[in-house]
Amino acid sequence: MKTVDLNSDLGESFGAWQMGNDAAMIDVASSVNVACGFHGGDYDVMRQTVELAKARGVSIGAHPGYRDIHGFGRRPFYGMPAREIENLVAYQIGALQGVAALSNYKVTHVKAHGALSNVACEEDSTARAIAAGIKAVDPNLVFVVLANSKLVQAGEAANLSMAHEVFADRAYEDNGNLVSRKKPGSVLHDPKQIAERVVRMVQDGAVVSVTGKVIKMRTDTICIHGDTPGAVDIARGVRQALKEAGIDVAPFKKAS
Amino acid sequence: MKTVDLNSDLGESFGAWQMGNDAAMIDVASSVNVACGFHGGDYDVMRQTVELAKARGVSIGAHPGYRDIHGFGRRPFYGMPAREIENLVAYQIGALQGVAALSNYKVTHVKAHGALSNVACEEDSTARAIAAGIKAVDPNLVFVVLANSKLVQAGEAANLSMAHEVFADRAYEDNGNLVSRKKPGSVLHDPKQIAERVVRMVQDGAVVSVTGKVIKMRTDTICIHGDTPGAVDIARGVRQALKEAGIDVAPFKKAS
Amino acid sequence: MKTVDLNSDLGESFGAWQMGNDAAMIDVASSVNVACGFHGGDYDVMRQTVELAKARGVSIGAHPGYRDIHGFGRRPFYGMPAREIENLVAYQIGALQGVAALSNYKVTHVKAHGALSNVACEEDSTARAIAAGIKAVDPNLVFVVLANSKLVQAGEAANLSMAHEVFADRAYEDNGNLVSRKKPGSVLHDPKQIAERVVRMVQDGAVVSVTGKVIKMRTDTICIHGDTPGAVDIARGVRQALKEAGIDVAPFKKAS
Amino acid sequence: MKTVDLNSDLGESFGAWQMGNDAAMIDVASSVNVACGFHGGDYDVMRQTVELAKARGVSIGAHPGYRDIHGFGRRPFYGMPAREIENLVAYQIGALQGVAALSNYKVTHVKAHGALSNVACEEDSTARAIAAGIKAVDPNLVFVVLANSKLVQAGEAANLSMAHEVFADRAYEDNGNLVSRKKPGSVLHDPKQIAERVVRMVQDGAVVSVTGKVIKMRTDTICIHGDTPGAVDIARGVRQALKEAGIDVAPFKKAS
Repeated sequence: MKTVDLNSDLGESFGAWQMGNDAAMIDVASSVNVACGFHGGDYDVMRQTVELAKARGVSIGAHPGYRDIHGFGRRPFYGMPAREIENLVAYQIGALQGVAALSNYKVTHVKAHGALSNVACEEDSTARAIAAGIKAVDPNLVFVVLANSKLVQAGEAANLSMAHEVFADRAYEDNGNLVSRKKPGSVLHDPKQIAERVVRMVQDGAVVSVTGKVIKMRTDTICIHGDTPGAVDIARGVRQALKEAGIDVAPFKKAS
Repeated sequence: MKTVDLNSDLGESFGAWQMGNDAAMIDVASSVNVACGFHGGDYDVMRQTVELAKARGVSIGAHPGYRDIHGFGRRPFYGMPAREIENLVAYQIGALQGVAALSNYKVTHVKAHGALSNVACEEDSTARAIAAGIKAVDPNLVFVVLANSKLVQAGEAANLSMAHEVFADRAYEDNGNLVSRKKPGSVLHDPKQIAERVVRMVQDGAVVSVTGKVIKMRTDTICIHGDTPGAVDIARGVRQALKEAGIDVAPFKKAS
Repeated sequence: MKTVDLNSDLGESFGAWQMGNDAAMIDVASSVNVACGFHGGDYDVMRQTVELAKARGVSIGAHPGYRDIHGFGRRPFYGMPAREIENLVAYQIGALQGVAALSNYKVTHVKAHGALSNVACEEDSTARAIAAGIKAVDPNLVFVVLANSKLVQAGEAANLSMAHEVFADRAYEDNGNLVSRKKPGSVLHDPKQIAERVVRMVQDGAVVSVTGKVIKMRTDTICIHGDTPGAVDIARGVRQALKEAGIDVAPFKKAS
Repeated sequence: MKTVDLNSDLGESFGAWQMGNDAAMIDVASSVNVACGFHGGDYDVMRQTVELAKARGVSIGAHPGYRDIHGFGRRPFYGMPAREIENLVAYQIGALQGVAALSNYKVTHVKAHGALSNVACEEDSTARAIAAGIKAVDPNLVFVVLANSKLVQAGEAANLSMAHEVFADRAYEDNGNLVSRKKPGSVLHDPKQIAERVVRMVQDGAVVSVTGKVIKMRTDTICIHGDTPGAVDIARGVRQALKEAGIDVAPFKKAS
C-alpha cells in the first residue's frame, strides 16, 4: 500500500490575532509545521498547537523563519551570515522542543518558512546553514525540503534524513521547478483537478508539467494550506481522494 | 575543602547594543545565566556567550524573563496565568539548549530574571509554574533559587535539584529576607567588606543581618554583577578573597 | 434634534493578521479610534483606516495603548512614571497625525486603549499624564473619557474639551460605575434591549442601573464594538434605533 | 562669514541599552537627527534627546529607519512598496513631532537612517517616497540629502528645501560618490587630516577626491559621529578647526 504525508503550516496566530483554521487542518494533515514565534506564533500558540497535534497523533515540526513578526517572515534577508542563520534555526527548533516537552511530545522535523526557505533555494550558504542548525540540535530531525531545490543538496551534504515536498496546488515547469507566482497559471484552484493531480503524484512518483511533460519527482510529503475556507475544502478533497485511491496518509516520521 | 559557585548574568547585549562586561566576568564567575532573547540577548549573543563559557569551562544556565525587551524584563506582570509562565520558561530554556547545541555544550541550570523572579517570590502560582516549566524540559536542570524565598518551596514541590543563592552585595533582614532596595543600606558598596562577608557566608553557612544577627543560610552560589566597572572590581575582589581563604570556586553543576 | 456620536475602535489589524470588521463598522460609527502601533495596528493599517474614515466623513482619533503588541495592550503597567505615560501618548498621537497627513486628514480626538485606560481610571497620575500628553500635542484635541471616571477630572484639570463616553452593552452600578466584568450580567447581549437602552440614554441623559435606578449621565458618545459578527449586528441595530427615534448620529467633532 | 552645519545621529539608546555619547555630541553638533523608535531610540530617549537639544539651541530632525530594532535599521528591504515607505516615514516624523511638543520644540528636518538611506540612493521609488512622506507631514521640513545622490533629485521633484550633506571622514571618488566601504581608504581616521579637509570643503565648496581631483560640491551640513571616544575627539577637532578658520557653525534651519 502506498503512503504519503500531508503537511500544513499551523500555529500562525499571534497574541490576540487569529490566523488560519488549525482545528480543521489538524484533521486533514498528518504532519504540521509549527511557527516558532519569529514570523508568527508565540509560546502560548505553540503549546496549543502541540496539544492539538498530540491529541490526533499528528507529527510536529519546527517552522523557523526570519525574525520579522511585522512582515510575517515573508521579506528576504539576502546575505545574512551563515552563522546567524544557524543561530536563528537552532533557537527556534530548541524553543519548540522546550514547549513540546510540556506536553511530553517530540519534534520530528524542520521546514523553513517563507522568505527563509525562498532565500535558501537561491543561496547555498543559507541552505547549508539551515541544515547545519538542524543537525546540531538533533541529527535525527527530518529536513523537509522542496523537491528539486538547493535544499536537497544541503540536506545530503549534512547527511540528514529528508522528506521531499511537492505542492498540491502549484504548477511545475518542465525542469521540475515551480512555475513562478508571477506567471499566470502558477497556482491551481480547481479542487477536483488538484485532488486528482495529488493522487497521480503519489501513484506515479511524478508530476505533470505545464507543457504536459511527466517529471519524475520523489514525493514524501504534500503541502496543503488552510488559510482560507476554500483552501480547507481543497485540502479535505485531497485527503478524501487519497483515501479513495487506497493511499494511506501518515507522517513521514511518527512522533514519540 | 569548601567550595562555592559564583554566578553572574551574562549575554544581555541586544542587536547593536552592548551591555555589561562579559569578557571580564567570564573569568570571575563559575556559572553564568544567559539571557534568552525575551528581556535581553538574542540568538547571536547567546551563541557568543555559550562559546565564551565553554572555552573557560564555565557552566551555563537559562535566564528566562518576561517577554519585554523594551523594559528589560524589569516590569512585573502580576497574575499572568501559570500556563503562560510554564510556556515562556520552557520556550526560553529550549531556545538556549538549541543554540548551545551548536557548540555541543549543555545547559545545566535555570535562574529566573528580574521581575519574573521578583513576582515568583510573591506569587506561589508563578513560582510553581517556573518549576514546572523547568522540570518538563529537563528534570536534571538545577533550579537556582533565592535563599529563603518561595522559590525554594516551589523547587522542593517539583523535586528539582536546587542551588540556593545569596547576594554578595545585599543586606539581609533578621528573618533572612533581603533588605528592600527602597531602604538605606540595602546595597553594599565597599569591596573589602563585600569580600569578607562572602568568605564568612561560605565558611559559616550564614549571613550577618543588619542588626548583627547570624542567620543560617544555605549558600550554594553567590550572585555577582558586572554591569559597571566598579561591579567588576568587586566581583574580582570576591573571587580573590575566596581563593585566599582556601575556598574553591566551581560550578554547582559541571557542564558536559 | 438630539445628536449623539457612535465611536468604535478600528485599525487593530497588524501585519499579516486581520482583526475586526472595519469595512462594516465604518458605516455604523461616526468617530473611530485608530490603533497607533503599540498594542495593534501598524503604519500601513493606520493609513488604510484613515482613508476609509475620510471617505465616509467619519472622524478619527488616536487610540494610544501601552507598548505591548503581544498582549494587545490589555496588560496593566501599574506605577509607570507619569513622564513615560506622557511620552507614549504624545508619540502615538503624533504618529497618527503624521500618517493622517498623507491623506490630508486631521486627528480630532484621543481615547486611551485597554489597560492604559483601565489603569488611568485607578491611578490619578496616569490619568493626568494622558491629559498632559494630549494637551501638549494639540490642546484642541477632544479627550474621550469614560463617564464618571477619574479621566473626567484629569481632562477638566487640563482644560481639555471632552466627550463623555458610555457603553451600549455594559451594565451600570447605582453609583454610575460599570459593573465589573467579573460579575454576571455585566455585559448585555440582547440586540433589542441594547438598542432601546441606547435610545433612552440619549433621550433622557441617563442610564438605568442594575437595580433600576435612573442615573443622570452625560452621553456624548456611545462605544460600539465590531469584533464579532454578532457585535456588528448589535451596532447596526443601535444605529437603526437611533435613526427611528429621530436622533442624529454625528461626530462630536467634525474632522477637517 | 561662512557658515556650515554639523549634524549628528543622536538618541540611539533603547530601553536599558545605551549607545553613543549624546552628552558630548550635543556640544559639537548644530543639528541632530533623532532616532524615532524603529531602528533605535524609544519615546523616553526621544524626549531626553529633544530636551538636550532644546537646552543648547541645537535643531532636531527626524531620523526615520526601517522597522528593524534587532538589526538597527542596517538591513536593506529592497523593493518595499512606495506607499509603505511613505507610511513609515510619516509615522516616525509625526511621532517625533508629538514627543517634541511635550517640550514645546519644533522638528526642523528629516534625514533617512542607515539602510533606508542606502536603498534610497539606489531605488528611485524609495527616494521619492521618502520625499513624499516628508512633504505630506510638513512641506517646510528640510530634507537632508547625501550630496550627489538620488535623494537630491527626489527632493527637487518634491520641491523640498534641502541640506546637502558631506561626510567629514569619508573618501570620495572622482565622480563625487563616496568610496565604497569595501575599498581600503574609504574611511579617514587621522583627526588633523579630517579637520583640515572639512575646513577646505566649506571654504572652497569642494572636496578633493582620492586621485586628488577637486570636485565642486554643495556643502550645507557635515556629518559627524559620536559612536566611539575616538569619533567624539575627531568631531571636536572639526568644530575647533572651523572656529579657527573663522567659519560659523550653525543649524541650516533654526528651531522655533
